[in-house]
Amino acid sequence: MTIRVGIVGVGVMGADHARTLATQVPGAHLHAVQDADAARAAAVAQETGAGKSLTDPLALIADPAIDAVLIASPDATHRDFTRACLAAGKPVLCEKPLAPTARECLEIVAAEAALGRRLVQVGYMRRFDPAYVELKAKLGSGRLGRALMFHCQHRNVAAPAWFTADMAIGNSAVHEFDIARWVLDADMISVQAFKPRGPAPGAAVGPVFILLESALGQLVDIEVFNNAAYGYDVRGELVCETGTVALAPPVRTVTNATLVHGADYPADWRPHFADAYRLQLQAWIKSIETGHPVGASAWDGYVAAAIAEAGQESLARGQRVAIKLAPRPVLYPAAA
Amino acid sequence: MTIRVGIVGVGVMGADHARTLATQVPGAHLHAVQDADAARAAAVAQETGAGKSLTDPLALIADPAIDAVLIASPDATHRDFTRACLAAGKPVLCEKPLAPTARECLEIVAAEAALGRRLVQVGYMRRFDPAYVELKAKLGSGRLGRALMFHCQHRNVAAPAWFTADMAIGNSAVHEFDIARWVLDADMISVQAFKPRGPAPGAAVGPVFILLESALGQLVDIEVFNNAAYGYDVRGELVCETGTVALAPPVRTVTNATLVHGADYPADWRPHFADAYRLQLQAWIKSIETGHPVGASAWDGYVAAAIAEAGQESLARGQRVAIKLAPRPVLYPAAA
Amino acid sequence: MTIRVGIVGVGVMGADHARTLATQVPGAHLHAVQDADAARAAAVAQETGAGKSLTDPLALIADPAIDAVLIASPDATHRDFTRACLAAGKPVLCEKPLAPTARECLEIVAAEAALGRRLVQVGYMRRFDPAYVELKAKLGSGRLGRALMFHCQHRNVAAPAWFTADMAIGNSAVHEFDIARWVLDADMISVQAFKPRGPAPGAAVGPVFILLESALGQLVDIEVFNNAAYGYDVRGELVCETGTVALAPPVRTVTNATLVHGADYPADWRPHFADAYRLQLQAWIKSIETGHPVGASAWDGYVAAAIAEAGQESLARGQRVAIKLAPRPVLYPAAA
Amino acid sequence: MTIRVGIVGVGVMGADHARTLATQVPGAHLHAVQDADAARAAAVAQETGAGKSLTDPLALIADPAIDAVLIASPDATHRDFTRACLAAGKPVLCEKPLAPTARECLEIVAAEAALGRRLVQVGYMRRFDPAYVELKAKLGSGRLGRALMFHCQHRNVAAPAWFTADMAIGNSAVHEFDIARWVLDADMISVQAFKPRGPAPGAAVGPVFILLESALGQLVDIEVFNNAAYGYDVRGELVCETGTVALAPPVRTVTNATLVHGADYPADWRPHFADAYRLQLQAWIKSIETGHPVGASAWDGYVAAAIAEAGQESLARGQRVAIKLAPRPVLYPAAA
Repeated sequence: MTIRVGIVGVGVMGADHARTLATQVPGAHLHAVQDADAARAAAVAQETGAGKSLTDPLALIADPAIDAVLIASPDATHRDFTRACLAAGKPVLCEKPLAPTARECLEIVAAEAALGRRLVQVGYMRRFDPAYVELKAKLGSGRLGRALMFHCQHRNVAAPAWFTADMAIGNSAVHEFDIARWVLDADMISVQAFKPRGPAPGAAVGPVFILLESALGQLVDIEVFNNAAYGYDVRGELVCETGTVALAPPVRTVTNATLVHGADYPADWRPHFADAYRLQLQAWIKSIETGHPVGASAWDGYVAAAIAEAGQESLARGQRVAIKLAPRPVLYPAAA
Repeated sequence: MTIRVGIVGVGVMGADHARTLATQVPGAHLHAVQDADAARAAAVAQETGAGKSLTDPLALIADPAIDAVLIASPDATHRDFTRACLAAGKPVLCEKPLAPTARECLEIVAAEAALGRRLVQVGYMRRFDPAYVELKAKLGSGRLGRALMFHCQHRNVAAPAWFTADMAIGNSAVHEFDIARWVLDADMISVQAFKPRGPAPGAAVGPVFILLESALGQLVDIEVFNNAAYGYDVRGELVCETGTVALAPPVRTVTNATLVHGADYPADWRPHFADAYRLQLQAWIKSIETGHPVGASAWDGYVAAAIAEAGQESLARGQRVAIKLAPRPVLYPAAA
Repeated sequence: MTIRVGIVGVGVMGADHARTLATQVPGAHLHAVQDADAARAAAVAQETGAGKSLTDPLALIADPAIDAVLIASPDATHRDFTRACLAAGKPVLCEKPLAPTARECLEIVAAEAALGRRLVQVGYMRRFDPAYVELKAKLGSGRLGRALMFHCQHRNVAAPAWFTADMAIGNSAVHEFDIARWVLDADMISVQAFKPRGPAPGAAVGPVFILLESALGQLVDIEVFNNAAYGYDVRGELVCETGTVALAPPVRTVTNATLVHGADYPADWRPHFADAYRLQLQAWIKSIETGHPVGASAWDGYVAAAIAEAGQESLARGQRVAIKLAPRPVLYPAAA
Repeated sequence: MTIRVGIVGVGVMGADHARTLATQVPGAHLHAVQDADAARAAAVAQETGAGKSLTDPLALIADPAIDAVLIASPDATHRDFTRACLAAGKPVLCEKPLAPTARECLEIVAAEAALGRRLVQVGYMRRFDPAYVELKAKLGSGRLGRALMFHCQHRNVAAPAWFTADMAIGNSAVHEFDIARWVLDADMISVQAFKPRGPAPGAAVGPVFILLESALGQLVDIEVFNNAAYGYDVRGELVCETGTVALAPPVRTVTNATLVHGADYPADWRPHFADAYRLQLQAWIKSIETGHPVGASAWDGYVAAAIAEAGQESLARGQRVAIKLAPRPVLYPAAA
């Protein structure tokens, strides 16, 4: 059984997904790629051997030759295209965020809940990253006792000049919100965001520091620094009752040169999470075959967005903000 | 020229200081040791070759054969003994805290300011730790730009059952308060303390998490976990405009055994900071010879206590508390 | 285009290959698995969805429905089965060693050379390991100058009691011989093997230490220790003119517990090289599609065996032994 | 009791020793410094507060106001000055090598043996380095079983153009010979030296690779690379029956910058071994007070020289050379 996939949007992420699907994921056939830029769609189709390229996203979603849809178009389009997939009854893997606002995410949740079966997966790929998987397994082993705190850092080399602290929360920190919920298997009940001193005036946005409190009383602290300059770096350390466990950087070689013993950082997130993206796609295809959903659900996508909005409000008001969620449809499992 | 030193209090720390002074610090002669427990004083005198042991601290301080005093007696006595040293016009190295309350510290500050010359050094030994010194030097080099954040962790194996979160702040976190001010060369203007979920009920105190805001807008986050179980561990990472610099653990060998590649932790702070204690004593003796004070001043001791009290208030009230300091006498230098 | 693969021998390695092919390698279809043990063959076929299981290896090789053959049967059978594949004109990926003796390997080389096209790949999977690939790329970048030495360690937890130093050379060290030739892109001209003191009498074989000299004057030193007890560990450091580059251990998380900061070792080689095996299979399937051979050739398989035999002779005679190779057919490329 | 020390030769090493003695070693008084260059002697005397500077080494040794002598003059003078100290009945710490040839070393051994008490310590300071001490202690704990192999690397940034492979053995590798004997507590019975390909023609000497066989059958392999370019680096890994233990690099901070996670190397050996030099001096002074010799003896100095000469012979002849030692006087302890 081969799942015929169509990709909506083949910019940087979509084209990467297309390549991975075409060369590293068994059980899938890349049937068509879509982009508003016809030349780009055609180029990616040619490179990846996709049978077909088009510019109309809804035509791709409606195409009866397509079994499942991957959405990697601009964020503002995610809600409509995901809803179109739900309407067509097709499994969909939507890049994060599920939608730009919590309210829009909730529309998708409601539509899926009305349908009564899970078709939506959100591309929070860290859940498939072997390092995070091992971190969670070490917590799950019980050897370190219960989790008390989770220290997280998320650093990029550089963000555009127009990137704001609100975007740092809504665009970058959402990865941390999702993975913290998944690792701790706990809901978050409050958030507090801080804006420490940033780089020299005129430079782009500085770090944002965020504290989450979980329903179990755990504290999650998150540094998001989109202009960290030195490299793409994601770290996490789980502090437990009898020990801690931390992500190791994905280093393959170490070099001695020019008075330094050093390990390289990638300049962006793709080398760091290449395997997570591959394994996410593989798990998604497998989940379509088996009918058992995996990964972040539409509800998870909504919750990440809701935390982000509470975080942005906290930043604006300078105080702690409670995280209030809509009622959770029974379609989605509760945290432990 | 040899400085004749007397030590007040030779419990665990005082006896360690006595041994270090007697065997590793040139320019000093351990003249006398004092302890309320006469047998202990005598034993330490014998072990270290101190000429004399006594039980009366004020007699030691007053002894004209003693040039300088090291105070390592219980915290509650620090104020009186330090003031006695000031009254006697003798240089004194007082173990932290300078006194149990900010108000008492301020009395010492006032007395020293009235004297018009600095005689008091507070035993914030991290300022002499080669790793912190290198951290500060890397910041000072300018190669990483200005400091934006400082992430700190302070973990002990276990604290007594009666140890409280307030003690975690007043007794452990003060080291972090002092070193953060020293590394950043900045005053702290607000503090906010959190008490995340702790170990299983019945167990001793859990972690405390503290945020400091500096006058330069920098954010310092501090985890103090006195029951961290796995080992004595102190870490710090300075996040700067173009890179970060972090303390490396003081590891001498790494071992492969039983499916683990591992480096040992000490069970308490003494092996970790043994060199810092030695270098602090050496610098103190040297400073007496030269007349140029080094290390944490009485003012620094007061400020650490003031931050601690604001932190304890924050914990009690559940909100951010501004750090209000008394006017700084001109005897003490301002932060940058 | 889908390559229909048959696997000869589904013991530990063969069954792993079957699972990887069935679930992680696009472009391949696992058509049949063979094993002398019919029940095992059937079980693996069932688990992996292979259409068919059988006990006759030559029948599998001859099956016209099979495009390519993976040989993972006992070493003693490799020559005959590989030659049968050549006779059938089918691409074959043969687990290392290509054959138990250099002479037998040479028969395969001769048969393939007579055929005039490369069909044989030998399963020296390290050539596909991302860490070795990065090591070679760093050398290739020229930034470190030319390679002068290569220090290699190969350690297993435990070997059976009947395992000998000759087997350590012929079975384990061959991986090092192959990867050293590949990384350095150089032929080896002499070998010298040593047998240092081993574990306590009665215990199984101790370490073997091997020195290779390359045609470029480089020195490769190899420790093979099959009873290293502590974990499965493979390391390599390339010493170059202006720096060194070393393999980093494939660590995903680090744990603090019980006074140790530690990273786990696997108990055997499969977790360490899981990705190398997957990438090797993927590259093999791709090479069949494109007709461009990749990985270790039959000639490389022969050379590894020839070095091993010279190494065994060196161990027996206690002196350096020159590595003498048969003439290289033009079908195979020369080292740089 | 204060030991009055005189230093013969205050070039780079001697001046460093003078500074360390004057500021970090209690129990010692730097009484006089000597150098053939009177201005240099005077400058070092002034900097360190030594009471006196002179140019005549024998006058310094003979000075009745001097209790003990530290020799840091050119290697060629070591024998005569050490013998003068023996003749004067004064404790002497002689920088390595004890003398340029094994024969000359043996003269010192014979003179000291005739005297019937140990006065000579050789400056193999690694025996006092906390990392080597911990390495040896881990072996001694028995937890890893017996030692089977010892892998050693010794790398300098650059050597002068006139530096030869023989010098690499006689000047650098002697440190490894001594520390291997000390860590393993075993005599060495054979040596074999190799000269792998070096840096580009015209450049200075390349690496030398040396194998030692111990009387217990252990293998010690040593890379000495005096033009390693990237930094001063000394490493060692002890392979034991149930695990390994290795020196950790003496790193205080790690820096993230310019796409690299890096730890600094020093440009020469002094920062790496600063603490070893201090502790060696402290132990030497203490040993004079107590009358119990510590550190490398004249015999150890002879043995290192004898191994070096056998290694140089091996390099010249291209084969293994047995290490033949003179009879050991009973004054010196045997290896385990």
